[in-house]
Amino acid sequence: MSLLSDLDRQALSRCYDLALKSYEEGGLPIGSVLTRGSAILAEGHNRRVQQGNPILHGEMDALQAAGRQKSYADVTLYTSLSPCMMCAGTIVQFGIPRVVIADATSFGGNEQFLRDRGIEVIVAEDPRCLALMQRLFAERPALWNEDIAEDHCSGAGA
Amino acid sequence: MSLLSDLDRQALSRCYDLALKSYEEGGLPIGSVLTRGSAILAEGHNRRVQQGNPILHGEMDALQAAGRQKSYADVTLYTSLSPCMMCAGTIVQFGIPRVVIADATSFGGNEQFLRDRGIEVIVAEDPRCLALMQRLFAERPALWNEDIAEDHCSGAGA
Repeated sequence: MSLLSDLDRQALSRCYDLALKSYEEGGLPIGSVLTRGSAILAEGHNRRVQQGNPILHGEMDALQAAGRQKSYADVTLYTSLSPCMMCAGTIVQFGIPRVVIADATSFGGNEQFLRDRGIEVIVAEDPRCLALMQRLFAERPALWNEDIAEDHCSGAGA
Repeated sequence: MSLLSDLDRQALSRCYDLALKSYEEGGLPIGSVLTRGSAILAEGHNRRVQQGNPILHGEMDALQAAGRQKSYADVTLYTSLSPCMMCAGTIVQFGIPRVVIADATSFGGNEQFLRDRGIEVIVAEDPRCLALMQRLFAERPALWNEDIAEDHCSGAGA
Protein backbone atom coordinates (compact mmCIF):
# COMPACT_ATOMS: atom_id res chain seq x y z
CA MET A 1 0.00 0.00 0.00
CA SER A 2 3.08 2.24 0.11
CA LEU A 3 2.40 3.56 -3.39
CA LEU A 4 -0.81 5.16 -2.19
CA SER A 5 -1.00 8.83 -1.23
CA ASP A 6 -3.51 10.28 1.22
CA LEU A 7 -5.65 11.38 -1.75
CA ASP A 8 -5.46 7.84 -3.16
CA ARG A 9 -6.75 6.41 0.11
CA GLN A 10 -9.49 9.04 0.35
CA ALA A 11 -10.60 8.36 -3.25
CA LEU A 12 -10.57 4.56 -2.72
CA SER A 13 -12.65 4.97 0.42
CA ARG A 14 -15.13 7.07 -1.55
CA CYS A 15 -15.27 4.31 -4.22
CA TYR A 16 -16.35 1.91 -1.49
CA ASP A 17 -19.01 4.32 -0.21
CA LEU A 18 -20.39 4.72 -3.75
CA ALA A 19 -20.34 0.95 -4.30
CA LEU A 20 -22.22 0.36 -1.05
CA LYS A 21 -24.77 3.07 -1.93
CA SER A 22 -25.39 1.39 -5.29
CA TYR A 23 -25.77 -2.04 -3.68
CA GLU A 24 -28.25 -0.69 -1.15
CA GLU A 25 -30.26 0.76 -4.07
CA GLY A 26 -30.52 -2.76 -5.51
CA GLY A 27 -27.75 -2.24 -8.03
CA LEU A 28 -24.24 -3.48 -8.64
CA PRO A 29 -21.73 -2.48 -5.94
CA ILE A 30 -19.06 -0.82 -8.05
CA GLY A 31 -17.99 2.78 -7.51
CA SER A 32 -15.47 5.04 -9.21
CA VAL A 33 -13.81 8.40 -8.61
CA LEU A 34 -11.76 10.67 -10.88
CA THR A 35 -9.20 13.08 -9.50
CA ARG A 36 -7.29 15.89 -11.17
CA GLY A 37 -4.24 17.02 -9.26
CA SER A 38 -5.26 17.12 -5.60
CA ALA A 39 -9.01 17.48 -6.16
CA ILE A 40 -11.87 15.12 -6.87
CA LEU A 41 -13.12 15.80 -10.41
CA ALA A 42 -16.12 13.48 -10.55
CA GLU A 43 -17.55 10.29 -9.12
CA GLY A 44 -20.01 7.62 -10.13
CA HIS A 45 -21.26 4.10 -9.65
CA ASN A 46 -22.76 1.31 -11.73
CA ARG A 47 -26.30 2.23 -12.81
CA ARG A 48 -27.40 -0.85 -14.78
CA VAL A 49 -30.29 -1.47 -12.41
CA GLN A 50 -31.02 2.09 -11.34
CA GLN A 51 -31.25 3.48 -14.90
CA GLY A 52 -31.63 0.27 -16.92
CA ASN A 53 -28.40 1.28 -18.61
CA PRO A 54 -25.80 -1.37 -19.51
CA ILE A 55 -23.00 1.05 -20.42
CA LEU A 56 -22.96 2.81 -17.06
CA HIS A 57 -20.37 0.79 -15.23
CA GLY A 58 -18.90 2.78 -12.32
CA GLU A 59 -15.97 4.11 -14.34
CA MET A 60 -18.20 5.16 -17.26
CA ASP A 61 -20.63 6.88 -14.90
CA ALA A 62 -17.79 8.91 -13.39
CA LEU A 63 -16.49 9.87 -16.84
CA GLN A 64 -20.01 10.89 -17.87
CA ALA A 65 -20.34 12.97 -14.70
CA ALA A 66 -17.06 14.76 -15.45
CA GLY A 67 -18.47 15.95 -18.75
CA ARG A 68 -16.38 17.17 -21.66
CA GLN A 69 -12.68 17.49 -20.87
CA LYS A 70 -9.94 18.94 -23.03
CA SER A 71 -7.50 16.37 -21.70
CA TYR A 72 -7.23 13.54 -19.19
CA ALA A 73 -3.42 13.74 -18.98
CA ASP A 74 -3.50 14.70 -15.28
CA VAL A 75 -6.42 12.51 -14.24
CA THR A 76 -6.31 9.42 -12.02
CA LEU A 77 -9.19 6.94 -12.22
CA TYR A 78 -10.05 4.99 -9.06
CA THR A 79 -12.40 2.05 -9.15
CA SER A 80 -13.65 -0.36 -6.52
CA LEU A 81 -13.36 -3.25 -9.03
CA SER A 82 -10.81 -3.91 -11.78
CA PRO A 83 -11.97 -2.51 -15.13
CA CYS A 84 -13.76 -4.74 -17.64
CA MET A 85 -12.81 -4.58 -21.33
CA MET A 86 -15.27 -1.71 -21.96
CA CYS A 87 -13.81 0.40 -19.18
CA ALA A 88 -10.21 -0.58 -19.93
CA GLY A 89 -10.70 0.39 -23.58
CA THR A 90 -12.18 3.69 -22.46
CA ILE A 91 -9.24 4.44 -20.15
CA VAL A 92 -6.87 3.87 -23.09
CA GLN A 93 -8.98 5.89 -25.52
CA PHE A 94 -9.29 8.85 -23.15
CA GLY A 95 -5.57 8.83 -22.38
CA ILE A 96 -5.94 8.42 -18.62
CA PRO A 97 -2.40 7.76 -17.37
CA ARG A 98 -3.03 6.27 -13.91
CA VAL A 99 -5.54 3.76 -12.55
CA VAL A 100 -5.92 2.68 -8.91
CA ILE A 101 -7.98 -0.47 -8.37
CA ALA A 102 -9.39 -1.46 -4.99
CA ASP A 103 -10.19 -5.09 -5.86
CA ALA A 104 -8.62 -7.11 -8.69
CA THR A 105 -9.38 -10.47 -7.06
CA SER A 106 -13.17 -10.64 -7.51
CA PHE A 107 -12.80 -9.65 -11.17
CA GLY A 108 -9.79 -8.77 -13.26
CA GLY A 109 -7.63 -9.60 -16.21
CA ASN A 110 -7.23 -6.28 -17.99
CA GLU A 111 -4.45 -4.87 -15.80
CA GLN A 112 -1.78 -6.01 -18.28
CA PHE A 113 -3.78 -4.62 -21.22
CA LEU A 114 -3.54 -1.22 -19.51
CA ARG A 115 0.12 -1.55 -18.52
CA ASP A 116 1.06 -2.61 -22.06
CA ARG A 117 -0.28 0.77 -23.18
CA GLY A 118 1.83 2.75 -20.74
CA ILE A 119 -0.77 3.22 -18.01
CA GLU A 120 0.30 3.02 -14.37
CA VAL A 121 -1.91 0.47 -12.62
CA ILE A 122 -1.92 0.11 -8.83
CA VAL A 123 -3.90 -2.66 -7.13
CA ALA A 124 -4.72 -1.89 -3.50
CA GLU A 125 -6.73 -5.03 -2.64
CA ASP A 126 -9.11 -3.24 -0.29
CA PRO A 127 -10.83 -5.86 1.89
CA ARG A 128 -14.11 -3.91 2.15
CA CYS A 129 -14.54 -3.72 -1.63
CA LEU A 130 -13.62 -7.39 -2.00
CA ALA A 131 -16.15 -8.41 0.67
CA LEU A 132 -18.89 -6.38 -1.03
CA MET A 133 -18.30 -8.16 -4.35
CA GLN A 134 -18.42 -11.52 -2.56
CA ARG A 135 -21.82 -10.48 -1.17
CA LEU A 136 -22.95 -9.71 -4.74
CA PHE A 137 -21.81 -13.11 -6.01
CA ALA A 138 -23.65 -14.84 -3.16
CA GLU A 139 -26.83 -12.76 -3.17
CA ARG A 140 -27.33 -11.60 -6.80
CA PRO A 141 -25.34 -13.89 -9.13
CA ALA A 142 -27.65 -13.42 -12.13
CA LEU A 143 -27.28 -9.65 -11.96
CA TRP A 144 -23.50 -9.96 -11.92
CA ASN A 145 -23.50 -12.31 -14.89
CA GLU A 146 -25.70 -9.88 -16.80
CA ASP A 147 -23.33 -7.01 -16.03
CA ILE A 148 -20.32 -8.81 -17.48
CA ALA A 149 -22.46 -10.21 -20.32
CA GLU A 150 -22.02 -13.79 -19.24
CA ASP A 151 -24.98 -15.72 -20.58
CA HIS A 152 -25.16 -18.27 -17.77
CA CYS A 153 -25.54 -18.43 -14.02
CA SER A 154 -22.25 -19.53 -12.53
CA GLY A 155 -21.28 -17.70 -9.39
CA ALA A 156 -18.20 -15.54 -9.75
CA GLY A 157 -17.32 -13.79 -12.98
CA ALA A 158 -14.83 -14.38 -15.73
CA MET B 1 -19.93 -5.36 -50.84
CA SER B 2 -21.03 -8.91 -51.57
CA LEU B 3 -20.96 -9.85 -47.88
CA LEU B 4 -23.74 -7.35 -47.17
CA SER B 5 -27.36 -8.43 -46.88
CA ASP B 6 -30.32 -6.16 -47.58
CA LEU B 7 -30.65 -5.58 -43.83
CA ASP B 8 -26.94 -4.69 -43.66
CA ARG B 9 -27.40 -2.07 -46.37
CA GLN B 10 -30.52 -0.70 -44.72
CA ALA B 11 -28.78 -0.45 -41.34
CA LEU B 12 -25.71 1.23 -42.86
CA SER B 13 -27.91 3.73 -44.63
CA ARG B 14 -29.60 4.48 -41.32
CA CYS B 15 -26.16 4.99 -39.71
CA TYR B 16 -25.49 7.67 -42.30
CA ASP B 17 -28.84 9.35 -41.66
CA LEU B 18 -28.12 9.41 -37.91
CA ALA B 19 -24.62 10.75 -38.51
CA LEU B 20 -25.96 13.54 -40.74
CA LYS B 21 -28.67 14.39 -38.17
CA SER B 22 -26.00 14.69 -35.47
CA TYR B 23 -23.78 16.86 -37.65
CA GLU B 24 -26.68 19.17 -38.47
CA GLU B 25 -27.31 19.52 -34.72
CA GLY B 26 -23.73 20.80 -34.33
CA GLY B 27 -22.39 17.45 -33.14
CA LEU B 28 -20.07 14.75 -34.38
CA PRO B 29 -21.34 12.90 -37.48
CA ILE B 30 -21.21 9.32 -36.27
CA GLY B 31 -24.24 7.06 -36.17
CA SER B 32 -24.81 3.48 -35.09
CA VAL B 33 -27.51 0.82 -35.36
CA LEU B 34 -27.99 -2.50 -33.59
CA THR B 35 -29.93 -5.33 -35.18
CA ARG B 36 -31.16 -8.60 -33.72
CA GLY B 37 -32.09 -11.19 -36.31
CA SER B 38 -33.95 -9.33 -39.05
CA ALA B 39 -35.08 -6.37 -36.93
CA ILE B 40 -33.52 -3.11 -35.80
CA LEU B 41 -33.01 -3.30 -32.03
CA ALA B 42 -31.78 0.23 -31.32
CA GLU B 43 -30.00 3.17 -32.86
CA GLY B 44 -27.94 6.12 -31.72
CA HIS B 45 -25.42 8.78 -32.60
CA ASN B 46 -22.57 10.64 -30.97
CA ARG B 47 -23.92 13.06 -28.33
CA ARG B 48 -20.74 14.70 -27.02
CA VAL B 49 -21.97 18.14 -28.07
CA GLN B 50 -25.71 17.61 -27.70
CA GLN B 51 -25.52 16.25 -24.14
CA GLY B 52 -22.00 17.33 -23.12
CA ASN B 53 -21.29 13.64 -22.70
CA PRO B 54 -17.90 12.22 -23.70
CA ILE B 55 -18.84 8.54 -23.37
CA LEU B 56 -21.74 8.72 -25.83
CA HIS B 57 -20.02 7.79 -29.04
CA GLY B 58 -22.51 6.53 -31.62
CA GLU B 59 -22.05 2.88 -30.67
CA MET B 60 -22.38 3.57 -26.94
CA ASP B 61 -25.52 5.64 -27.52
CA ALA B 62 -27.11 2.75 -29.44
CA LEU B 63 -26.17 0.28 -26.69
CA GLN B 64 -27.61 2.63 -24.08
CA ALA B 65 -30.81 2.95 -26.12
CA ALA B 66 -31.15 -0.85 -26.33
CA GLY B 67 -31.21 -1.02 -22.53
CA ARG B 68 -30.51 -4.14 -20.53
CA GLN B 69 -30.08 -7.27 -22.63
CA LYS B 70 -29.71 -10.86 -21.49
CA SER B 71 -27.32 -11.55 -24.35
CA TYR B 72 -25.81 -9.92 -27.44
CA ALA B 73 -25.01 -13.25 -29.11
CA ASP B 74 -27.39 -12.56 -32.02
CA VAL B 75 -26.73 -8.83 -32.33
CA THR B 76 -24.91 -7.05 -35.17
CA LEU B 77 -23.48 -3.59 -34.51
CA TYR B 78 -23.32 -1.16 -37.43
CA THR B 79 -21.38 2.06 -37.24
CA SER B 80 -20.70 4.85 -39.68
CA LEU B 81 -17.09 5.08 -38.40
CA SER B 82 -14.69 2.39 -37.25
CA PRO B 83 -14.85 1.88 -33.46
CA CYS B 84 -12.37 3.66 -31.18
CA MET B 85 -10.76 1.74 -28.32
CA MET B 86 -13.67 2.53 -25.96
CA CYS B 87 -16.24 1.18 -28.39
CA ALA B 88 -14.07 -1.77 -29.48
CA GLY B 89 -13.56 -2.76 -25.85
CA THR B 90 -17.30 -2.51 -25.29
CA ILE B 91 -18.06 -4.73 -28.29
CA VAL B 92 -15.71 -7.37 -26.86
CA GLN B 93 -17.06 -7.03 -23.32
CA PHE B 94 -20.69 -7.32 -24.43
CA GLY B 95 -19.97 -10.34 -26.65
CA ILE B 96 -21.25 -8.79 -29.87
CA PRO B 97 -20.19 -11.25 -32.58
CA ARG B 98 -20.49 -9.15 -35.75
CA VAL B 99 -19.57 -5.54 -36.60
CA VAL B 100 -20.24 -3.77 -39.90
CA ILE B 101 -18.28 -0.54 -40.41
CA ALA B 102 -19.21 2.03 -43.06
CA ASP B 103 -15.91 3.97 -42.99
CA ALA B 104 -12.56 2.64 -41.74
CA THR B 105 -10.52 5.13 -43.77
CA SER B 106 -11.23 8.36 -41.88
CA PHE B 107 -10.49 6.62 -38.57
CA GLY B 108 -9.56 3.07 -37.75
CA GLY B 109 -7.05 0.71 -36.28
CA ASN B 110 -9.09 -1.49 -33.98
CA GLU B 111 -10.44 -3.88 -36.62
CA GLN B 112 -7.69 -6.43 -35.89
CA PHE B 113 -8.25 -6.08 -32.12
CA LEU B 114 -11.84 -7.18 -32.75
CA ARG B 115 -10.94 -9.95 -35.21
CA ASP B 116 -8.31 -11.33 -32.82
CA ARG B 117 -11.16 -11.85 -30.34
CA GLY B 118 -13.30 -13.82 -32.78
CA ILE B 119 -15.53 -11.00 -33.95
CA GLU B 120 -16.55 -10.84 -37.61
CA VAL B 121 -15.68 -7.38 -38.95
CA ILE B 122 -16.92 -6.18 -42.33
CA VAL B 123 -15.77 -2.85 -43.77
CA ALA B 124 -18.14 -1.45 -46.38
CA GLU B 125 -16.32 1.83 -47.16
CA ASP B 126 -19.50 3.80 -47.74
CA PRO B 127 -18.59 6.98 -49.66
CA ARG B 128 -21.32 9.10 -48.02
CA CYS B 129 -20.05 8.35 -44.50
CA LEU B 130 -16.46 8.96 -45.57
CA ALA B 131 -17.36 12.32 -47.16
CA LEU B 132 -19.19 13.40 -44.00
CA MET B 133 -16.12 12.69 -41.84
CA GLN B 134 -13.97 14.66 -44.29
CA ARG B 135 -16.38 17.59 -43.82
CA LEU B 136 -15.91 17.26 -40.04
CA PHE B 137 -12.10 17.31 -40.35
CA ALA B 138 -12.29 20.41 -42.55
CA GLU B 139 -14.98 22.31 -40.67
CA ARG B 140 -14.63 21.27 -36.99
CA PRO B 141 -11.13 19.83 -36.41
CA ALA B 142 -10.96 20.83 -32.72
CA LEU B 143 -14.20 19.00 -31.98
CA TRP B 144 -12.91 15.86 -33.65
CA ASN B 145 -9.64 15.99 -31.70
CA GLU B 146 -11.59 16.37 -28.47
CA ASP B 147 -13.73 13.35 -29.33
CA ILE B 148 -10.73 11.08 -29.79
CA ALA B 149 -8.96 12.70 -26.82
CA GLU B 150 -6.16 14.12 -28.95
CA ASP B 151 -4.77 17.11 -27.12
CA HIS B 152 -3.76 19.10 -30.21
CA CYS B 153 -5.27 20.49 -33.36
CA SER B 154 -3.95 18.53 -36.29
CA GLY B 155 -6.53 17.81 -38.94
CA ALA B 156 -7.46 14.14 -39.28
CA GLY B 157 -7.46 11.75 -36.35
CA ALA B 158 -5.08 9.10 -35.16
